[in-house]
Parts: sequence; C-alpha cells; structure tokens
Amino acid sequence: MLENIKKIGVLTSGGDAPGMNAAIRAVTRSCAYYDIECIGIYRGFQGLIEGEFEVLTARSVRNVINKGGTFLKSARSQEFRTKEGRAKAFEKLQEVGIDALVVIGGDGTFTGAIHLQQEHNIPIVGIPGTIDNDINGTDYTIGYDTALNTVVDAIDKIRDTASSHDRLFLVEVMGRDAGDIALNSGIGAGAEEILIPEEDMGIDRMMESLMKSRKSGKTSSIIVVAEGEKSGKNIFELAEFIGENLTGYDIRVSVLGHMQRGGAPSCYDRVLASKLGVGAVEAILRGESGVMVGITNKIVTSVDFEVAIKGRRPLDKELRRVLNITTV
Amino acid sequence: MLENIKKIGVLTSGGDAPGMNAAIRAVTRSCAYYDIECIGIYRGFQGLIEGEFEVLTARSVRNVINKGGTFLKSARSQEFRTKEGRAKAFEKLQEVGIDALVVIGGDGTFTGAIHLQQEHNIPIVGIPGTIDNDINGTDYTIGYDTALNTVVDAIDKIRDTASSHDRLFLVEVMGRDAGDIALNSGIGAGAEEILIPEEDMGIDRMMESLMKSRKSGKTSSIIVVAEGEKSGKNIFELAEFIGENLTGYDIRVSVLGHMQRGGAPSCYDRVLASKLGVGAVEAILRGESGVMVGITNKIVTSVDFEVAIKGRRPLDKELRRVLNITTV
Amino acid sequence: MLENIKKIGVLTSGGDAPGMNAAIRAVTRSCAYYDIECIGIYRGFQGLIEGEFEVLTARSVRNVINKGGTFLKSARSQEFRTKEGRAKAFEKLQEVGIDALVVIGGDGTFTGAIHLQQEHNIPIVGIPGTIDNDINGTDYTIGYDTALNTVVDAIDKIRDTASSHDRLFLVEVMGRDAGDIALNSGIGAGAEEILIPEEDMGIDRMMESLMKSRKSGKTSSIIVVAEGEKSGKNIFELAEFIGENLTGYDIRVSVLGHMQRGGAPSCYDRVLASKLGVGAVEAILRGESGVMVGITNKIVTSVDFEVAIKGRRPLDKELRRVLNITTV
Amino acid sequence: MLENIKKIGVLTSGGDAPGMNAAIRAVTRSCAYYDIECIGIYRGFQGLIEGEFEVLTARSVRNVINKGGTFLKSARSQEFRTKEGRAKAFEKLQEVGIDALVVIGGDGTFTGAIHLQQEHNIPIVGIPGTIDNDINGTDYTIGYDTALNTVVDAIDKIRDTASSHDRLFLVEVMGRDAGDIALNSGIGAGAEEILIPEEDMGIDRMMESLMKSRKSGKTSSIIVVAEGEKSGKNIFELAEFIGENLTGYDIRVSVLGHMQRGGAPSCYDRVLASKLGVGAVEAILRGESGVMVGITNKIVTSVDFEVAIKGRRPLDKELRRVLNITTV
Repeated sequence: MLENIKKIGVLTSGGDAPGMNAAIRAVTRSCAYYDIECIGIYRGFQGLIEGEFEVLTARSVRNVINKGGTFLKSARSQEFRTKEGRAKAFEKLQEVGIDALVVIGGDGTFTGAIHLQQEHNIPIVGIPGTIDNDINGTDYTIGYDTALNTVVDAIDKIRDTASSHDRLFLVEVMGRDAGDIALNSGIGAGAEEILIPEEDMGIDRMMESLMKSRKSGKTSSIIVVAEGEKSGKNIFELAEFIGENLTGYDIRVSVLGHMQRGGAPSCYDRVLASKLGVGAVEAILRGESGVMVGITNKIVTSVDFEVAIKGRRPLDKELRRVLNITTV
Repeated sequence: MLENIKKIGVLTSGGDAPGMNAAIRAVTRSCAYYDIECIGIYRGFQGLIEGEFEVLTARSVRNVINKGGTFLKSARSQEFRTKEGRAKAFEKLQEVGIDALVVIGGDGTFTGAIHLQQEHNIPIVGIPGTIDNDINGTDYTIGYDTALNTVVDAIDKIRDTASSHDRLFLVEVMGRDAGDIALNSGIGAGAEEILIPEEDMGIDRMMESLMKSRKSGKTSSIIVVAEGEKSGKNIFELAEFIGENLTGYDIRVSVLGHMQRGGAPSCYDRVLASKLGVGAVEAILRGESGVMVGITNKIVTSVDFEVAIKGRRPLDKELRRVLNITTV
Repeated sequence: MLENIKKIGVLTSGGDAPGMNAAIRAVTRSCAYYDIECIGIYRGFQGLIEGEFEVLTARSVRNVINKGGTFLKSARSQEFRTKEGRAKAFEKLQEVGIDALVVIGGDGTFTGAIHLQQEHNIPIVGIPGTIDNDINGTDYTIGYDTALNTVVDAIDKIRDTASSHDRLFLVEVMGRDAGDIALNSGIGAGAEEILIPEEDMGIDRMMESLMKSRKSGKTSSIIVVAEGEKSGKNIFELAEFIGENLTGYDIRVSVLGHMQRGGAPSCYDRVLASKLGVGAVEAILRGESGVMVGITNKIVTSVDFEVAIKGRRPLDKELRRVLNITTV
Repeated sequence: MLENIKKIGVLTSGGDAPGMNAAIRAVTRSCAYYDIECIGIYRGFQGLIEGEFEVLTARSVRNVINKGGTFLKSARSQEFRTKEGRAKAFEKLQEVGIDALVVIGGDGTFTGAIHLQQEHNIPIVGIPGTIDNDINGTDYTIGYDTALNTVVDAIDKIRDTASSHDRLFLVEVMGRDAGDIALNSGIGAGAEEILIPEEDMGIDRMMESLMKSRKSGKTSSIIVVAEGEKSGKNIFELAEFIGENLTGYDIRVSVLGHMQRGGAPSCYDRVLASKLGVGAVEAILRGESGVMVGITNKIVTSVDFEVAIKGRRPLDKELRRVLNITTV
C-alpha cells in the first residue's frame, strides 16, 4: 500500500447517471477506512480548475446512496481541453495537497484524465458512470441498469395506452453510439422491433417486420428507436414514413428524453458503484494510475484508460437473436 | 328500483385513462350484485355499431383493478357521429336486449351519448374517465390523480439531472384545454413556473420570473408547460427564445407524452372508479338517464350530460397563488 | 395582517408522514414571501425545550418537496407534557424572539400545542400531518394519500404471489383507531374483506364472507386488517383460527409495518402540504391562534385544536357499501 | 436439431418469482419459432399429474412479460414425491404426446425433475426461477434482481422514518439458506450491519458494530436480517436483546414478507428470463436433458441438475468486505 497517498480528490464529469452518488460515497468511505482525507471537487474538471473543493467525511455522504444525479454536480469544461486549463487544474491540486484523483464519468472524462495524468504525472483512477453502457473493459457502467428499468417502466405505461387504442408507438430511447439500452429495453418491454446504431437494418426490414406482426394479428406495436440509429430519418420522419406506407395504423411518437438519466438507482447500480468506489481507492493505494476500474464477470478489474475509451464491444448478437425469437 | 332493467352494457370511449378498468369492474360487479346481466362492449361506440359484445361476470373482472388502460379498448368512431351510425348502434343494442348503457370517457363520449339517448330513448349514464380533469360537475375525473403522480415522478427524475448540470428544463405535460395537470404537478414537482391554457401570462412574465429565480441564486429550473398553452410558440421555440434572451442558461426540453396515460392506477383513482361504477349502475336503477355521475365533496352526484360538457370550472386561482408563493 | 409577527417557528412532531417536508417548505417560503424570518425547530417539542433552532431560508428547503420523512426530525417529549417543560420551551421561544409557531403533526401534537398556547399565550397554528387520516376538521391529512398508494402497491405484489399459489393472505396495515387506510386500500387492492376498528363484524361474518368467496370459485383471497381491529385476536391468531376452521386454505400473514410511513410523497400530498403550509402562515398573519388549518371540500379552513382532536368522523358507510358490492 | 420433438410442455413449480411469466413467454415463443407445439401445464407437478394442460400460442403470452407471479400457477405436490405420482404424471405426458419438458423453479423443482427423467427417460431442461439466488451453476436466478429492488425500495422508505425518529430498525428479508438478498440489499440500502445464514457473526459482534456506529454519531441505523440467520434468536428476540443491552436506542422491527416475491419484473429479470427461455428450448433441440440452463459471465450455459442443486456458492467475501468498508 502506498504510504504517500494522504489526500484523494473525487469528481464527477460528463452526463450524470444514477449511482454516481453511491460511487462518491464509496470513495469517501474507503478513504475514511484507509485514513486518507477525501476532497470532493464540484462541477467536474471546471470546478477543479476553479478550486471548488470541500472536505468529505463519512458523514457527508449519509443518505446519498439512494439519490439520483450527483451532489458534486457535473459540467462541461472547454478550458480543461487546453493545456493551460489542465496546468491550472494541477496547480489547484497541488495547492490543497491532493495526491491522487478518482474521476467518475464516461469516455470524455477519461480522455481528459489521460491528458492531465500524462502532463502532470498525478495518479488518476476512473470509474465508469454513464447510462449508455458504452465503455470498454467493464460489463456494466453505473447507471445503465437503472436507466433500463426507467425505460421499461415508461414503455409499460405506453403499452397500456397502445393496446387500449390499437396503436403503433415509436419510442425513442438514449444511445447515440450504443444500442444496449434499446436492445435490452426492447426485449424487456416486449417491443416488436428495435432500431439501433450498430446495424442499419434498412427501413425495408422494419416495414417487413411490421407487416409480419400485423398479419399475425397484432393490433398494437412498440418500436424502440435508439437516438443514434442509422436510418437517416429522425423519429418523426420515420413515423410519417410508416404512416404513408402502411395503411390502417394509428401511429404515435414518444421521446423519453432526460428522465432516463435520473431517479433512485437500482440495487444493482448501488452495489456496483459501491464495489467500484472501493476498488478505485484501493487501485490508487496499489500504485495504479491511468486506469479505469470496471466489472468483468463480477470481479473488479482495471484497464488502461486508452482501452476503456477505444471503441466498444460489438453488439450482443445473441441478445439480438433472443429479441427476434421472442417477438415472433 | 327499476324492475325492467335486465341487461346493462358498458363501454369505454375516447382517450384511455388509468382506472377505467376499475370502473368497468365496479359496473360489472354492481350488475352481479343487483342480478343484472352485464355486457362488455369493445372498442367504444365503433364496437357498439359492430356488435363486439361479451358477457362480463364477476370473474371476468378479476385482477383488472390494478391495470392501466382499458381491457374493453377504446376507439374513435366517425360512423357514430352520423344519425345512421347511431341507428345501427341502437339496433345492435336491441338485438341483444341491452336495456341501458354505461359509457366511460370524456366530453366527446358524453356528446355521443346525448345523441344516442335523445334519438333512441335508451337510458345512458356516464362516468368521467380522462386524465385531463376537464369535465364539469365532478371534482375529479378517473385517471387524473394517477397522471399527476406519473408526471411528478418523471419531473423528479428530470430534476436530478437538471440540478446535477445546472440546467433549465421545459417539460411539456398533457392538457390541451385544462391547466390542472400543469398547475398541480408544477406545485408538486417544485417547478419555478408554469404555462397553461387558462392564462396568457405572456412570454415577458415568464422571462421576468426566470430572471428573478436566477438572481435568487437558483442554478437549475423547471418550467412545466401544458400542451395547450397560449404563448403562440411550441415548446422547442420557447426554449430557443429563452436561450436567445437569457444568457448562461443551458436549456433542455422534455415532452412527457403518452406515458402520462398509462400505468397502474393510484389508490385514489381505484376507489373513485369503484364508487362511480357502483353509482352509475344505481343511477340507472333509480331511473336516471342522460346524466354523468361524478364526485362532489366526496359524495357521488349526478349532473346532466349537457352540464358536464359545457365549458369547465375556471382555473383554481388559490392554487395558482400557492405556486407563486412556494416558488419564491 | 399582523405587523408584529416578525419570526415564525416551525416543527414536526409525532409519527412522521410523507409530505411533512413539503409542508415545512411551504411554511418557510410563505415566511420569505411575507418577509418574516422562519426558524426551523428540530426534534419537535423536545428540540424546542432544548433550543435546537436553525434559520430556514427559501434556499434551505430546496429539493425537499419530494423527500419522505421530515428533515426537522420528530421525537416524543415526556418533558413537554409537564408545565415546567412547557415553561422552558416558552423561554427558548422568547430568547430567540419567535412570535408564533406552526406545528405539524397529529392529535398528540395539537394537545401539546393547546397547553403551550393557553399557558403562555403565544399564537400557534397546526397542520395535520399523519398517515392515519384520523383528525377531525380536515378531509385529508398530509401523508394519508401516499400511504394508501404504498399499501396498494404492496398488496398488488402480494396478490401476484397469492394468485400464483392459490393462497389466502391476511395483510396488516396501519390504523390503530381509524379504518380509513384499511377500507380505502381494501377497495383499491380488490381485497375480499377488511377488519377495522370502527366495526366489530365478528369473526363469524368474516368466516361467512370467506366461505362465500370460496364457493364463488375464488382460489386466492386478500383480507386487509387494520392494526386496531376489534376481533380480540392478533393477526397471527386470526390466521390460525381461519386455518383451523376452513380446510383447504393455504394461509399467510404479512404485516406491512413502517414502510407505510416513508417514501416520496404523492402529488396530492405535496399539493395539500403546500396549500396548508401557506394557509398556516396566513392564518397566523390574520391573527388566528389555537387552530388547525385543514382542507374541506378543497378549501383551506381553520378549526379549533379542540375540534381537531375530538373524536373523529364516523366510518364512511357509503365506502363500506362500495367494498361489499365490488367484492361480490 | 432433434426432429422428433414436436411438443414441449412447460410448468412453474416452487415459490413464484417475478420473471417467471417472461420465461414462459420465451419458451412459448421459441416453440412457435421452431414450429413446435407448446403446452402450458398448470399448478406445477400437481397439475401435471392431474393433466391440467392448455395449448400456448405466441398470442397466449402477449402482455405477460411485465406481470409478476406465474400465470401457470405453482403448487406443492406430495403425490409427485412418490414413484406412483410420477408414473401418473408420465402417463399424462404420453396421453397428450408431450416429448419434452421445461420446468421453471428452484432446487425442489429440479429434484423432482431428476426423478421423473430418470424413471421415465423423458428429456427435461430446467430454468432457475427463484428470488433467493441459491442455485448453483448460474450467476443469477430469475426474480432475484427484482426482489433486490423491492427490498431496497422498502428499506429506503423505512430509512425515511428511521432517520426522522432516530431509530434502529431490524428489517427481515427472505433467504433461508442464502444471504445474497441480505448482503446486496444491505449494501444497496446503506445498512449498518447484516445477519446472514452463511456466517455466525455472533451477537457480540453485532453489538460491537452498533456501539461503534453509535460512537461515530449515527442516530439511526438499519440492520438487515436474513430469515435463516444463525444467532438462534428470532428477529423480535434480537430486538429485545439489543434494547436490553444498548440503552437509548428506540428499536423497531419490520418483516418485509411476501411482497418480496411479487411485482413487475425488473428489466434485467425480463431479459434473463427471455434468454433462458430460448436457451431451454434450444437445449432440448440439441438433445440435452437433465440439465438446467443458467447464465455464467453473460453466456447461457447448461449444468446437470445434480450440480445445480448441490450446495451453493460460498458467500461473496469481496462483497462482504465492501459492506464493511462503505459502512464505516
């Protein structure tokens, strides 16, 4: 265990995700456990540059494990993208004597961390916190499981009205680059079809799929559409296209939007965040740096930031197959 | 009690609302209680024209009280708007010997019922089922309380991400003619401002309100916007306008959409639906017709359909004042 | 408006209820609105005696409207039941210059308030906050609506397993003196029977009711039992008795317990708490004292504390009838 | 692929679990996909003996994915524990021409399946459905994730009232042999201590832990107690013991009970159930028998029934450590 680590800073950056508070709590409590001072840094890298610090004790993080969002707040920072900005940030860290950093966020966060670490040689460990599950080197990111439940719960509600009125709903869910939310919530909500960034199924196949489902006697349908899908049409244009080419369907659009980011974290996300928070502090104490701690086959592991942000796992083809079969 | 009522038909029409199933259940069970046969009519007035009937027994409505939507389904019917359509409908009623009708829905439903009743002299009693609470002669409509909880729950989630990122959110909720959902959920979710159909506060006042809230140190805000508000801009244009005229705000839009119609009904809506379901059958047995049963000061009462659909209560000014004060 | 009210204290006392935070928030914001200083008093009357005060500003109550419990905490106070204790309390109020008090709680709270007010002539206004809905002079108490939803949600879950296994469940809900929770949640959850303090239906009638429901082909059943019911047997003894006298039933007991007190308040409770919080401060400013503000037919009204605590409304017989009919 | 499999039967047995309906749906749809007839068997092995069969089509399982419980129902069967009972069951299978069985349940279910398969040489594949997660050879059982969320949600509510009143709560959760629910929900709900079957921490250590937490200034605490914990005292005796030996604590007990078994399944459980339902049918078609399909490192795998029921994984020590650290 490194003896020279006396003070660890922790921040959240990028889009917020349910479970971030649980991760901050675990980092704080782990520091307390190992007799290290924990410094909360507000507003991500921007707050780091501006020195928005606060000492966190075991008590500071009481009653946060069940709260959505991040009490340390998050922000985008143009300044941190510059060498000068990062130099300022490092200065602030030195001023208060922070020996190492835990950064919680997604690939943008880790990219920033790489630069800071390389330019100023300060130990940094990352924790994957994003609802998109688009980080390499971890089976799950914090917030993803909660977002799936939020989406499925919303689509359950939409299904109530869809089947009361024999309607076809297009439901847009988050996922600019990754179809994980759409694929899993599509299976979970019993959707008839999904449109995701990883495959360009072509509008033809979607129409086929709809016609098949209609022939089978289905009178109401749900199509889950990931933000980043590749049809070239936005969801309202898609609805219009279907309406023009498939008579008799009463079509509606629902864009779930930012509510997918909030809410009390699921038990899974709270436990995952607790594991990774402890794991991040212990990784620092083992002398690791420039790595993200993630979960692989239920074990906490570390991967280089470069690996974490480098492209992502391919789509889970097996799961795609399960959707096709169970949608019959 | 009328002895000649042996068979009562029940249908749902118009937009579905949580609690409609509970109302159908109560109608069915009340019929069983009074030894009357209950006939479920599928797909509203259209199904009535087409004779989509099914006998409902006490058992048919087991385990539906907690389900959103309506298992009898709902549909719009152009045909029923014509005299010929309604004549066909009446014929179907006579074919199976239905002596009286319970119709569950909103003002469109009751308008249809007025015509059918006047043209064919069949006893009809209505039950107000719509999330909009825009029916005269009842303190609450079935589904409204559930929708409020759904909206508040969604805005709670949005608030998590709003305050993590210091953002301003415009959240669109249902309410084409009535601001009840916006006003109540606005108070319940701690929104900073609301835009509703009943008042044209003018964009200037909204901007003032935002500037005031910003001066008071607020960094994140929620504005609840009813569909039918009168600014003349849609919600995306409103967001753009604010962005252009108030610097420093990071603005987002969220349109809650059809999920507001679904979900397991709240306890209040289940109880209300049960009361009104019983009340509707008993009104028929007392010889009433052409009326809607509603709830006034916790008592089940009847008002003529004409009253129910004639404009609505003015906005609850006291509640508007409560919002202003608690938003300080 | 009284000019001499410059400082108002607010406390919560007795069992906590969801919406208490919303009420504190509304009191605080109303004070801010009327330029009055608001002092939060921790731990109810005990904290008042010990002078646990904190200034509350509009900002202090941000993000509390959606939280269960009470951030001012609650406690029982033996000392406050004595004249000496109340004299100490009054001294503390004078020390910090508190001119009037808002007390949020149930009948125990109001009884304490009566004594304090009469002995020391300080204006006090009460707000009914208790899940039991057992206060006279208000249609609803804060927390009651939320508790109903919590109970109905829990019984919905129990019904899943009850009907999977063809079981009879006895579910105990809160209500030592009042059957409101049992009656409303019984209707809402589709229970077959309820046992409540207001009526001693006798075990015989319950057995009859069970036998009838069994004959009708029901294989699973829910009986909702209020804590304070009068059969003379506790719920486990009741289960045993049924088991011994009705063969073939697989019987289980579930005591819902304290989770009924917690959770995010429903929209209704948030709005009610906001109305009553504003109402309480305005009542003080109108010169009222020794009263509770409540809601009657949607209007905020005042009644003397003595009325509020004096026995309660009789059971809603109409609702009892609705349960009987819809349970057929 | 086996050509001789024309008809597959599916049943649920043992304690019900959320997600069982999703599993039945996936089995049914997979059969449809592979042009196999699917026969639903009601009431588990007892219904098998009594021939309670129903053809399931893709349509039969519409709108069940989000429902708790099992629509095929479950039951204990003494008769099936006898050789004669199983012979009768096999006869029934032959009568309707069922070529293979999918059984969804826990270790009791698989034990029954072993006997049936060995005595009558019929292909049987199992799916782990139990909230207890106490099955070997799968990382997760269907229903477990949902139960964790239900428990954490309930404890969140209890925590509201615990911290409002500075109370110590003992909360009993399911888990006769396995502490998985207690350990994970304990971390997720931020409990101070857990008591589980896998370790006999001794009451002394619990008392130490409580005294430590009290010294650290905690005024409210949650202890999560698994049904099967080994202190030798039941939860009410434990509460009494603590009350006698730790002054100043206001102690309450809450037994969560059967609501843990119900409720809409989480997205995770719906996806897991869908995967395993497809996996079970495909395992049969590959010629496997006497195995359970489970999930290991996100991959669907098979293990012999004997392995599945033979003792279970040891406690996750790493997770136990995470609880200790984050509870500081």
